[in-house]
Parts: sequence; structure tokens; C-alpha cells
Amino acid sequence: MSKQKQFVTEITPQQEDFSRWYIDVIKKAELMDYSPVRGCIVFRPDGYEIWEHIKDELDRRFKETGHRNAYFPLFIPESFFQKEKEHVEGFNPELPWVTEAGGEELEEKLAIRPTSETMIGHMYAKWIQSYRDLPVLINQWANVVRWEKRTLPFLRTSEFLWQEGHTAHETEAEARKETMRMLAIYREFVEDYLAIPVMKGQKTPSEKFAGAVDTYSIEAMMKDGRAVQAGTSHYMGTNFSVAFDIQFLGRENELEYAHTTSWGVSTRLIGSLIMVHGDDRGLVLPPKVAPTQVIMIPIGPAKLRDQVGGRADELFTELKRSGIRVRMDDRSDISPGWKFNEYEMRGVPVRLEIGPRDMENGVCVLVSRVSGEKRIVEQSKLVEEVKRMLEDVHQEMYERARQFRDDHFYSVDSIEEMKALMEEKRGFTLAGWCGSEVCEKHVKDETGATSRNIPFASQESKKTCLVCGEEAKHTVVFARAY
Amino acid sequence: MSKQKQFVTEITPQQEDFSRWYIDVIKKAELMDYSPVRGCIVFRPDGYEIWEHIKDELDRRFKETGHRNAYFPLFIPESFFQKEKEHVEGFNPELPWVTEAGGEELEEKLAIRPTSETMIGHMYAKWIQSYRDLPVLINQWANVVRWEKRTLPFLRTSEFLWQEGHTAHETEAEARKETMRMLAIYREFVEDYLAIPVMKGQKTPSEKFAGAVDTYSIEAMMKDGRAVQAGTSHYMGTNFSVAFDIQFLGRENELEYAHTTSWGVSTRLIGSLIMVHGDDRGLVLPPKVAPTQVIMIPIGPAKLRDQVGGRADELFTELKRSGIRVRMDDRSDISPGWKFNEYEMRGVPVRLEIGPRDMENGVCVLVSRVSGEKRIVEQSKLVEEVKRMLEDVHQEMYERARQFRDDHFYSVDSIEEMKALMEEKRGFTLAGWCGSEVCEKHVKDETGATSRNIPFASQESKKTCLVCGEEAKHTVVFARAY
Repeated sequence: MSKQKQFVTEITPQQEDFSRWYIDVIKKAELMDYSPVRGCIVFRPDGYEIWEHIKDELDRRFKETGHRNAYFPLFIPESFFQKEKEHVEGFNPELPWVTEAGGEELEEKLAIRPTSETMIGHMYAKWIQSYRDLPVLINQWANVVRWEKRTLPFLRTSEFLWQEGHTAHETEAEARKETMRMLAIYREFVEDYLAIPVMKGQKTPSEKFAGAVDTYSIEAMMKDGRAVQAGTSHYMGTNFSVAFDIQFLGRENELEYAHTTSWGVSTRLIGSLIMVHGDDRGLVLPPKVAPTQVIMIPIGPAKLRDQVGGRADELFTELKRSGIRVRMDDRSDISPGWKFNEYEMRGVPVRLEIGPRDMENGVCVLVSRVSGEKRIVEQSKLVEEVKRMLEDVHQEMYERARQFRDDHFYSVDSIEEMKALMEEKRGFTLAGWCGSEVCEKHVKDETGATSRNIPFASQESKKTCLVCGEEAKHTVVFARAY
Repeated sequence: MSKQKQFVTEITPQQEDFSRWYIDVIKKAELMDYSPVRGCIVFRPDGYEIWEHIKDELDRRFKETGHRNAYFPLFIPESFFQKEKEHVEGFNPELPWVTEAGGEELEEKLAIRPTSETMIGHMYAKWIQSYRDLPVLINQWANVVRWEKRTLPFLRTSEFLWQEGHTAHETEAEARKETMRMLAIYREFVEDYLAIPVMKGQKTPSEKFAGAVDTYSIEAMMKDGRAVQAGTSHYMGTNFSVAFDIQFLGRENELEYAHTTSWGVSTRLIGSLIMVHGDDRGLVLPPKVAPTQVIMIPIGPAKLRDQVGGRADELFTELKRSGIRVRMDDRSDISPGWKFNEYEMRGVPVRLEIGPRDMENGVCVLVSRVSGEKRIVEQSKLVEEVKRMLEDVHQEMYERARQFRDDHFYSVDSIEEMKALMEEKRGFTLAGWCGSEVCEKHVKDETGATSRNIPFASQESKKTCLVCGEEAKHTVVFARAY
């Protein structure tokens, strides 16, 4: 029951059972806990803080590009879903319904929002009258609910946290530009901040957002070779404008429909960064979102460790003041070795060891979580050395993830080839596709892989469809996905 | 339909109809809009940004005092509410219920959280095993729902945004200390940041939180003399620990129940700051939370205004770089006078006027939204002068609000006296109270005023109950309240 006991429990090795490894790690590192409500998790402080760092940085980037936040109701009247045909078909099976409130049955039942296109479309119709009111560039940070049959913490939960941007524009060109701009922000953020390489591309029609004209995604590869859709950006055309009557008086004094977009990322990103970077010792957290970036641990013979105290406090204060998220674990009843394991399991990017001899020499030791590299650094240069190592850890994490992805990226020409790959090694497979839904479905039925996207930058352009052998219209990446 | 037309519409004067004034102002200033769901509003960007500034600063203060954020599910199983008797009685009438989800009827219906004591209590019971796990200091930023019969934008809406802190402690003394510490943080924040003077005190038993041992509040006075409870902090004793089995192994190796607290403020604060500071020309926003702190407007003869452009851009950049939230309105087809009215209505704390003659003299003009004071300042000292005026505006807003509250604070000795006051002038009335619920209810029935709190710092100690004439146990402030 004591904490100490809890941490020596083994983590299932990734090779043995990746799913068990994942659950072991997020539970032990106290990122989450299961709640008593089906499919809903509790974000514990270390899990939630990762989200806070993601949120702060994305929010900064959204505002820098002219977006503002707003907040729309959690409840959506049933009739709203009927207005856009594809949208209702896509989301209806997953909705939870409020049917009673305040002791009475409701006249019209209310869905808990799975996404807010309908509610926001309704409001935009009131706010947008003239081309002078455009563009409208609004984002919302909110909880949404999709009643999922199979759930997995962070990656697929009934309730999750996300941001949803919703914009309205005068022209198609402007709306398409916005769609791509936000996709680019997602890619930059996920690579620069979470150290996850991603593949940008367009979704096939069967995989696009319910109600969109075109959906674009960034796709990341987990360490078991499966894909996660890490962010999406949709060009809606005038589908929602027609459904919700978002009309404006144009420059030629005629009524026109606005062109809208939406785009979002969610707490799935937390699951993704764990599955991309973690190893058999536990979490490996990207430095920019790690709740603790540096853990300070006094070392050396127990009876001498006290001598380190005062100087260690000074160094701690110096690091903290420079904006580094540092923690000190100077508990005397717990051994340094046990602490090393604990904070490795928790994924702290840099360990700072300091012992009585280091003290005399004016140095201390930095250890990288990702490579295990040790650096003896001068105490007088500690802040810059720590910053440098945090930066190096980020780079190395990104490089390793990129290498892993490249090593598990295959080009295939037949369904048999893909099937064999999916069973043996997993990964992303590039293949030609004729554009028919029948062939796409055949791939899924035979291999378990779904089309991830049609990459913007493909190494290769395939000539024939891997299923029917007809001319390929697109070169598509298929993978099993979370 | 054009924006210009919209703003010249009159605002109902406060004296004529305070409620209509309030709605006129928040709609015209585009802080909110009504949604198609009963009692739920849309927070438009300027309204939501006020909340963002409130949130950022409170969050900073919570973290500084050792609290961390987490996130718990939106849904609460019906059985959870049954566990704490007072709690269920207090909240049951206001709950919305999810009865269907994913196309099926639920086995146990789920409430949308009105507050999270029950869910969090359930989780704390899992996490807290030993006195070494204490204290647990967690806060949550979330949406909550209470299905209200009568609603008012920001002040009482079915869905609202808030933070709820939930802490667990080893001893009663420590939990009580936390309760008071958070009440103090609320008071400081509301006074220092929103320029609203508040009265700290303890709630009478009939007005305390459902399930609490003691509830404390800060109460603010609106410009119509009515009260708003601007924040509350509760000492729960072991009520929720017993109900949810939050037990831990104490220092004496015996099982003990944790002592818990909870504390919260909500988007009501937005409604409060509008009703405390606004005037017949519109909003008056406290500088620290105003989305736009300074509005720059080029003035002078239209044909000369262009000359101002380049220098105005430089000053704008200087202000922006120094962290001031500045906006420029240099639209040439709209007159300066119209702009003055517009940004006064929107409550922008400082207007910066700059004309061709000012340009020659190296000066510009700052105008205070609250007093109308004009200051001619040197352009070379603009940043510090703007900061000084923002600070002065804050101080003056606080002083005016304090003066208004003092002018509407009455001491009464009989129910007749209170009744007359409530009908003529409104305001806060200090009175003796014997402690019986019968007398408290009599006050409400006769005057419409409810007990706000038993102030910690009372000017006066009353000897007899204003209703029954028996010995007064407490000196209470009564007021009509939102």
C-alpha cells in the first residue's frame, strides 16, 4: 500500500503486450485513473498538466494568427442534428441524450455536444450579415462526448477535452487557405512541441468528417506500428451555411453563403505522445510539455548527503527562477537508486544528480532520460547546460521517432503483401488506390488497415490499385489505427 | 443592419430599469448572446476573454499556493447523489439527466454535474491511503449545469463555467485553515483585479452549501443595491469522507476520516463586474480584465488624419510590445465622435486620441473611461503614462464602488425599517438575528431580502433580533440578491 511498493511493480514489456504496457505506464505514472462512468477517465494532475502545456502553446499560436476564443452551450437540440444529413448520420449513433431536467421531461431532448458545428452554425447565422462581418475566426476549448463502444484512456474516451476552431469566410479560396493554415499549425506544433513526426495529407471520402467537403489530417505512428490521427482540419464548403442559413450580403449586393471550416485536436495527443516515446522503463515525456522537466536528486553516502543540502537549494532556486520546471526529491528515507527508477518511469526528461564530491568540484551530473547520456557540468553554467540538454532530449526524441517511422514505412503493390506486413511487423503501407469504396473496404476487411490519408509529399506515385489492379487515382497510406 | 446603426441604439438608463440596462449593455457590447437552449448563453469573444483573464490570474494564485489542476467526468451516476443526504436534497431539483446514450437506454441514469464533490470524493477514497498522501490540493476548471427556473445572463445560467477546488486534509484545523485561505484569495483577487469591494463572512445554516459544515462567502453590492455572492469556500468536516469512505491510516496507525473543503467562483463574476461598474453610457471594464485596455483613435480634420498614420503605428507597436492590450481604430469612413461613443459603450478603460497638431507637439491625449479625465502626455513617456492611467482607473473604480456600497449600507432594528429600505433604496442592511430559521424566513417573506452573511468585520454588534426581539446571536447582513 505504500508508494514505494507501488513503483517496484513491473511494467509489462512493450514487445510482450503493447496495450498492457500502455495501461501499466499511465496508471503507475498517475496520469489518469478510471472513473465509475463507462468510458470516462479522470485526468490526474500530471496528466492534466501535459494538457495545460499543450493548450497554452496552441492557444498562443491560434491567437497569433487572429483567432479568438468563445464558448457555446454543451447541449444541442435534437432538431439541429437533422439539418445536415451526413452530419446526423455520422454522429447520431454516438450521442448521449438528456431527456429530463429540473424534475420534468423535456419537450425536445438535448444531445451532449459531440462537436459544435450545428450550434455554432446557428449562432453565426445571427451574427453574420454582411461581407464586412467576415472572416469570423473563433475557437472553443471544451469537453465533448461521443459514446464509444470500445474505449482506451486518452486515445478514445466517451468524454474528452479538445479545441474546435470554427471559421466563416467570404470565399472558397479564403476558407481553403484557412483549412491548410491550421493543418500547418498542427504539424508544426506536434513536431516542435511533442517531438512527434507527422504525415500531412487528405482523407479519402469514406474517412472524412461527417458533413465536410474535404478533410485533411496529420497522422502519427505509435511504437506498435499503429496510426493515430493527431489532428484534423476540414473545409466544409457551404454545407453548414446552407443547413443553418449563414448568408451575407456580398460586395455585389447579393446574398451569398459563407464558406466555413473547422479544425481540432484533443486529449488524444496525450495518448499519442506516450505511445510514440515511451519505453520499457516507463514514460518518456517531451521536455516542452513535461510537468517536471528536471528532477534533482542528492546522491552519495547517506550520512554525507546532508552536506549537499544548502547548495542544492540554491541551484534549485536558480533553475526555478529561469523558468525551468524543476523538482527536488531530497527525502532521506528513500534511496537514490529507487528515486532514479521512479522518475525514469514518470518520464522526467533530465535528472540532476548532486553529491558531496561534486560539491567540492563545483560540478553536478545531468542524465538524459532518452539516451541515458551523462554530462558532468559546471554548477556556474547550470541553467544554460540544463536548457541545452532539454533541447537535445527533444531533438533526440524527434529523431528516434522519425527513424522508427521510416523503418516501418513500406511500399506495397498487392493486398497479399500488405496483409503479410500487417500481421508481422505493422507500420504504414503506401499503396495505389483506384478511388472506389469497394476496394478500400476490401483492404480493411482483409488486413485490418484503414486508409490514413493521401500524403501531400509522397516518395512514390503508384500506378495501379492494390486491390483491383485498375489505374490508381491516388497513392494512399494504409495502417491499422487507434 | 450595418454595425454603425447598431451602436447608436439607446441604452435604457439604469434608473429607469436596471435589468433592461444590463441586458441592453451586454448584448450591444457583444459580450454574450442567447442560445437556442433554455437558460444557456453563448460567451462571445469579448465576454469570454474577460473570463480568460480571470482564469489566468486565479489559476496563478492557486498554483502559487500549492494547488494543481485535474479533470473529472461530466457525468455523475445517480447513486452517488444518494450518499450524502443534504447534498442530494440541495441539488436534485436542478439536475439534468442523461437517460439514453449510444442508441440504448442506460441502466443507471447519469446526472450532468452541478458540482463535483461526489465524483471527487469517490476518487479521493481510492487515492488516499495514508496520512502521507495528505493534503490533496486539487482544483478543476469546468462547465457545470444547474437547471434553473429563472435565468439571467452570466449571473444565473443553466450551464456556467467555474472552478471548483477540492482538498482533503489530515486534521480539522488544517482543513479550516485552507477554507479561510481560499476565501482570502478570492477577496484579494476580486478587489485587486475586478475593483469590486466585498464583504467576507459566514453563511447562516439555511444558506450554506448542501452538505457543508460551514460556508463562507464574499458578497458584493450591485448598482441597484442587490447583492451577488461572488465566491464561496466550504468546510465540509468529514461529511463527504464518511459518505464516500475517504479513510486513511493516521500517524497512530488507526483509520481516520479526512477533513475536506471545497471552494469556487464562476462566470457570475462577469455579471457582477458589469453591474458594479457600468453606467448609462455602457460598460466600464476593470483594466486588468478588459479585452482592450487602450483604444487608439486618430482625430482632427479628416483630410489631415492620414498624416498621423505612421507615428500612430509606432506608438501602437510600442504599447503592444510593453504588454498593454491596445487596439487601433483608424477606419476613415467613421467619425471620431462615433468611435468615442462606441468604445465608451464597450467599456474600454483608456482612450488615446492623436491628432495632427499633437503630432507636431510630440504629445497625445489620454481619456479615462471612468471619470472622463483628460491628460495631455508626452509621446516619449507614453507607455508609463498609459500604465499609470490604467492603474488610476482601477483605483477610481474601486473607490467609487466602495463609496456606493458604504452609501447603501444601513443598520436597522426592526422589520418595518428594513421593509421600507428594501422598497425605497435597496442596499445592505445590518440587523440582529436570534438564530432561528423562522425569523430568517419571516425577513425574506416580508422584505424579499435574504441573509447574505455574518460579516467577519462588523461595524456594530446588534443586541436583539429584528423579528422576535429576543437576544441576538449574530449580526447579519440582509439584502435582496441575484
